Amino acid sequence: MIYADYNASAPLLPVVRDYLRKRLDSELFANPNTIHSMGQKISLGLEKCRSAISEVIGSHANQIFFNSGASEGVTTILHSILDGQDLNGKVVITSPIEHSVVINCLQFYRNRGLTIEMVSVSKDGIIDLPHLKELIKLNAERTILVAIMAANNETGVIQPYQEIAELCRDYEIIFFSDTTQLVGKGEYNFLQSGMDYAVCSGHKVGALPGTGFILAKDPRALSPLVFGGGQERGQRGGTQNYLGIESLAVALNDYKENAYKLSILDMARREFEFDVLSAFPEARIIGLEAPRLAGTTLIGYPGIHGQAVQIELESHDVFVSTSAACSDNEPATSKVLKAMGVEDDLGRSVIRISLSYSHGQKEYSALAHVLKSAYNKLRKIYSY
Amino acid sequence: MIYADYNASAPLLPVVRDYLRKRLDSELFANPNTIHSMGQKISLGLEKCRSAISEVIGSHANQIFFNSGASEGVTTILHSILDGQDLNGKVVITSPIEHSVVINCLQFYRNRGLTIEMVSVSKDGIIDLPHLKELIKLNAERTILVAIMAANNETGVIQPYQEIAELCRDYEIIFFSDTTQLVGKGEYNFLQSGMDYAVCSGHKVGALPGTGFILAKDPRALSPLVFGGGQERGQRGGTQNYLGIESLAVALNDYKENAYKLSILDMARREFEFDVLSAFPEARIIGLEAPRLAGTTLIGYPGIHGQAVQIELESHDVFVSTSAACSDNEPATSKVLKAMGVEDDLGRSVIRISLSYSHGQKEYSALAHVLKSAYNKLRKIYSY
Repeated sequence: MIYADYNASAPLLPVVRDYLRKRLDSELFANPNTIHSMGQKISLGLEKCRSAISEVIGSHANQIFFNSGASEGVTTILHSILDGQDLNGKVVITSPIEHSVVINCLQFYRNRGLTIEMVSVSKDGIIDLPHLKELIKLNAERTILVAIMAANNETGVIQPYQEIAELCRDYEIIFFSDTTQLVGKGEYNFLQSGMDYAVCSGHKVGALPGTGFILAKDPRALSPLVFGGGQERGQRGGTQNYLGIESLAVALNDYKENAYKLSILDMARREFEFDVLSAFPEARIIGLEAPRLAGTTLIGYPGIHGQAVQIELESHDVFVSTSAACSDNEPATSKVLKAMGVEDDLGRSVIRISLSYSHGQKEYSALAHVLKSAYNKLRKIYSY
Repeated sequence: MIYADYNASAPLLPVVRDYLRKRLDSELFANPNTIHSMGQKISLGLEKCRSAISEVIGSHANQIFFNSGASEGVTTILHSILDGQDLNGKVVITSPIEHSVVINCLQFYRNRGLTIEMVSVSKDGIIDLPHLKELIKLNAERTILVAIMAANNETGVIQPYQEIAELCRDYEIIFFSDTTQLVGKGEYNFLQSGMDYAVCSGHKVGALPGTGFILAKDPRALSPLVFGGGQERGQRGGTQNYLGIESLAVALNDYKENAYKLSILDMARREFEFDVLSAFPEARIIGLEAPRLAGTTLIGYPGIHGQAVQIELESHDVFVSTSAACSDNEPATSKVLKAMGVEDDLGRSVIRISLSYSHGQKEYSALAHVLKSAYNKLRKIYSY
């Protein structure tokens, strides 16, 4: 079995499973907000996790606010910036390749008067920096936020977030970047990134689902989305998901120790892509020339439907997506690809292969083998 | 060791640990929103959990919306009802014994024009129904919500929520009840309760922390707090915490199978209370005459500080709280007790002993022994 759908959700890392097996044998379960020693031990563990995570992602510990994951993180950040003010005449600049949580959340505030400006995207899936600069200049006084992701979930294309951050700094505009696909999967340092806000989801990095965090350059600038009894310094109510947080620290520590393997993954992916493209010159890799996550390939063979390829691969115990998990069931060109100007015959043909730093040549060789067989089989019976 | 702080957080149930140990050995980890068979297996499991939980709590399956826990649940419900409208002239009736998440959330909307009316509470900690009726009549046209909890976290006192629901029905007012301490801990049936909204937190019932759900009589009436990609029928964004949800179904099924033990727990608690009160006639149990959760005792000995008792018990490996977990560190009479008219010398002396249906006479005998020793020791050196 090859599970190649890490951008949708990563399986629990082996070290996380080992940790949890031991953890289940302990008796240390309590509310971290109580003052008895069991609660305090858990609370202390939680702060150790915060500190360990801050070292992996290059932030201060007090810039981390634990929550239930990136969707909550994105909503909280946008709510912090946009809620409770008159939005008429205010502008947020974003991109058409954002995850639906960003798009839906901004749509909510558009209904309350916000103006949304979309920066264009190259055919390789990279934000058009000159266009962004133009939009910022045009709306200099009115722009309260730039919301542009760090790495795209479908294509794996990494955005020039440091340049975006510089632009935002020059014009004193808040910069939030959806880093869900980058943190714990590629080189990243919060303080060096220049971002004001970033997010992480545990289930994307091999930790328990239902956990994650916000990174906030100014920890006092956030306002809570979920109310409660003062947890997370008043920024996020609800008893902390301490088991989830512990698993997150274990997972991100595993990333830190194994990040050097990303270059092996990257090389194996390139060989795989070269191999498949050589065998099928009609096939296309989206964002081929762009900087991408080491383990992400979005590949299509115009005329062969992506879902047909997906199903064929699945019959060989290989699991991939056709697009983002939440729109995986739509047999159409995704919004991200449309924004990149991808034609429908290619757009409907793509599958997303996403692996992690624990993989390399072995998995990609097997993937090349089954994918080539699938293309050979399916191109005889064009699916549409 | 006796962990007697279940109202703060329940340890993972043994059946939940067994389930998770097996679960960790499986390879079934994926995003439930993907269409490949791994995602679909998880998605199917999730719907089985929804169905199993609905049977335990007496709701329809489609009335359940999974989230990260009760704080998110409360915030989402209040947000659904109160956000995005002109709140000037609108009234919400609530009580002074609500959990801080309800109070803080309503405070947020008070700052946006909402009027809050407080129903008074008897010295036993029960909502004053005639006063509630009076408030409703006085504000009949303006009241958009009654928010009164089902069982209090500090005292364990169960509120007359069915009578409140009838009143609300008569006046066509939405009734939300914070059921965090009742679901999975005492007799409860959502459809029979007459509530429009209710909530549950996984970590209060022995499931994983970071999981829970909302119950909504009309599933279409909710609006999302956390945005995302259409998960939970558009009502709650973010990849579902499927491991948490599975643990929740296991935990609530355990409750269902063992609910008959609540009468044993109740009897053992009564004996314990009688035993301690007989030995120390100066001691007081808050809400002694009121219907209470089977496993909750809030007991004080005026003149002996609650924290001193807590520490003394802890030296014998017995873990209790002095009040709600999130205000456990405040050496003052809690807001809940103040609302009940409890004097400071009693209010500052209380400890909360909270157990579950897996306990009985054995634990309460041991508790009586250490508590009596503690009182005997500490009353010689009055702590204040």
